[in-house]
Amino acid sequence: MNPKAVNPIGVFDSGIGGLTVVRALMEHLPFESIHYFGDTARVPYGVKSVETISHYTTQIAEFLLEKQVKLLIVACNTMAAVASQVVHDLSPVPVLDVIEAGALNALAATETRRIGVIGTPTTVNSNAYGRAIHAVEPDARVVSQACPLFVPLVEEGWLDHQVTRLTAQEYLKPILTEKVDTLVLGCTHYPLLKPLLADVAGPGVTLVDSADAMAERAAALLTDLDLHTPSRQPADYHFWVTDVPLRFQTIGERFLGRSLNNVHVVKW
Amino acid sequence: MNPKAVNPIGVFDSGIGGLTVVRALMEHLPFESIHYFGDTARVPYGVKSVETISHYTTQIAEFLLEKQVKLLIVACNTMAAVASQVVHDLSPVPVLDVIEAGALNALAATETRRIGVIGTPTTVNSNAYGRAIHAVEPDARVVSQACPLFVPLVEEGWLDHQVTRLTAQEYLKPILTEKVDTLVLGCTHYPLLKPLLADVAGPGVTLVDSADAMAERAAALLTDLDLHTPSRQPADYHFWVTDVPLRFQTIGERFLGRSLNNVHVVKW
Repeated sequence: MNPKAVNPIGVFDSGIGGLTVVRALMEHLPFESIHYFGDTARVPYGVKSVETISHYTTQIAEFLLEKQVKLLIVACNTMAAVASQVVHDLSPVPVLDVIEAGALNALAATETRRIGVIGTPTTVNSNAYGRAIHAVEPDARVVSQACPLFVPLVEEGWLDHQVTRLTAQEYLKPILTEKVDTLVLGCTHYPLLKPLLADVAGPGVTLVDSADAMAERAAALLTDLDLHTPSRQPADYHFWVTDVPLRFQTIGERFLGRSLNNVHVVKW
Repeated sequence: MNPKAVNPIGVFDSGIGGLTVVRALMEHLPFESIHYFGDTARVPYGVKSVETISHYTTQIAEFLLEKQVKLLIVACNTMAAVASQVVHDLSPVPVLDVIEAGALNALAATETRRIGVIGTPTTVNSNAYGRAIHAVEPDARVVSQACPLFVPLVEEGWLDHQVTRLTAQEYLKPILTEKVDTLVLGCTHYPLLKPLLADVAGPGVTLVDSADAMAERAAALLTDLDLHTPSRQPADYHFWVTDVPLRFQTIGERFLGRSLNNVHVVKW
């Protein structure tokens, strides 16, 4: 056994959306301990410059590496889209990111090779999904659309509201015109809008959310590298955040699907 | 003449919304130089905790005091609502804040003493407008409503969109039921929604935006303290920001009403 196998997995996000990835990891790898970092003081990242996102991403990756994590998972699409290379360059441990997972999942789901991608403005402008998909399938048609209002709508809790429906109709119109058969939810907040988006997109479109794909890839990587923990004790979960904002507990537990303990605040 | 009179005025905000206050100052006090600080990397503040907002506010006030400002103006409603005292405590120069200005303006406008206030969740939860209004007029009825979607809607540019109208109808409903005759736009982003809000609120409601009131109060204070600049040269404007996000120039110029030069980035 690799001596590092007992170490935890590090997962990070710009806020609490990445808890959907933690939830999938808890289900797939119940004995693995996890350190989660959510930059709740500085969220959202989706409208910030590439330079600032890289700067913050470096800070967070270094913080988790000090916790001796054996694997770093970039759960935030925006960070993965523009700062994945920064993490790869500085990390001595393996790095997985949510964009690659989502792209592979979309390719597995599509029959027509016409794929839609929705995300924050920074994720969409980066064309990171397009690149990841085309690296595998150069002939795929990728149509993307920035949806900056979806994150605040989810945080407002308007998951099934006429305003959200109208907004989704407007955002999805150019994608649906292109007759995609698969739609990647390229932001960790969007799975909470899944029922509404499925309804707006119609029955011919498969929605892809990357939390499950991410957990499967993490499990495979641990096997390949002989890094599964030998422990059969209950796993240890720690949640590091830069702020405990209004409604943090409520929203966090909605994402995690269980109660949220061991929350520590880091002041930067 | 007071030797400090040649010094600039410091104005700060969580982002670019405070440029509406700078615009009013430019019109009312054309010879006064201004240093503006917008925390564009960490915006929005409206959903952060009081502790984090106080921490950031202190950092920014200290930064502007190092620029030798003669007056500090807290243009951000959220900061003014929860961290005004922090600024007063640390500042050796006078401090003006947007909430007091808005409250006084609302009292001047109302006939029925039934006043509505809209703002971010943190501003509304703080009840700062209620306290400022009741300090002058204990019998006033103040009804407030948090409108977390208005900032992203303004930044999306949906100033006259069906989604924004529906959202406004929903947010304003409980306030309009209370038959207010005055509505305070308690966030520097909201003036851009003024035509739509006026339409939704109807002709019986006067909308109060505090940028003008703020500029008038600043002019009066400079007179009282003998702090008007003697200079008749073109004023000097500097804009300090923590990030230059996507569409910064476009959105900033929309708020400022003129071109935005001398923008400097501070990395924290």
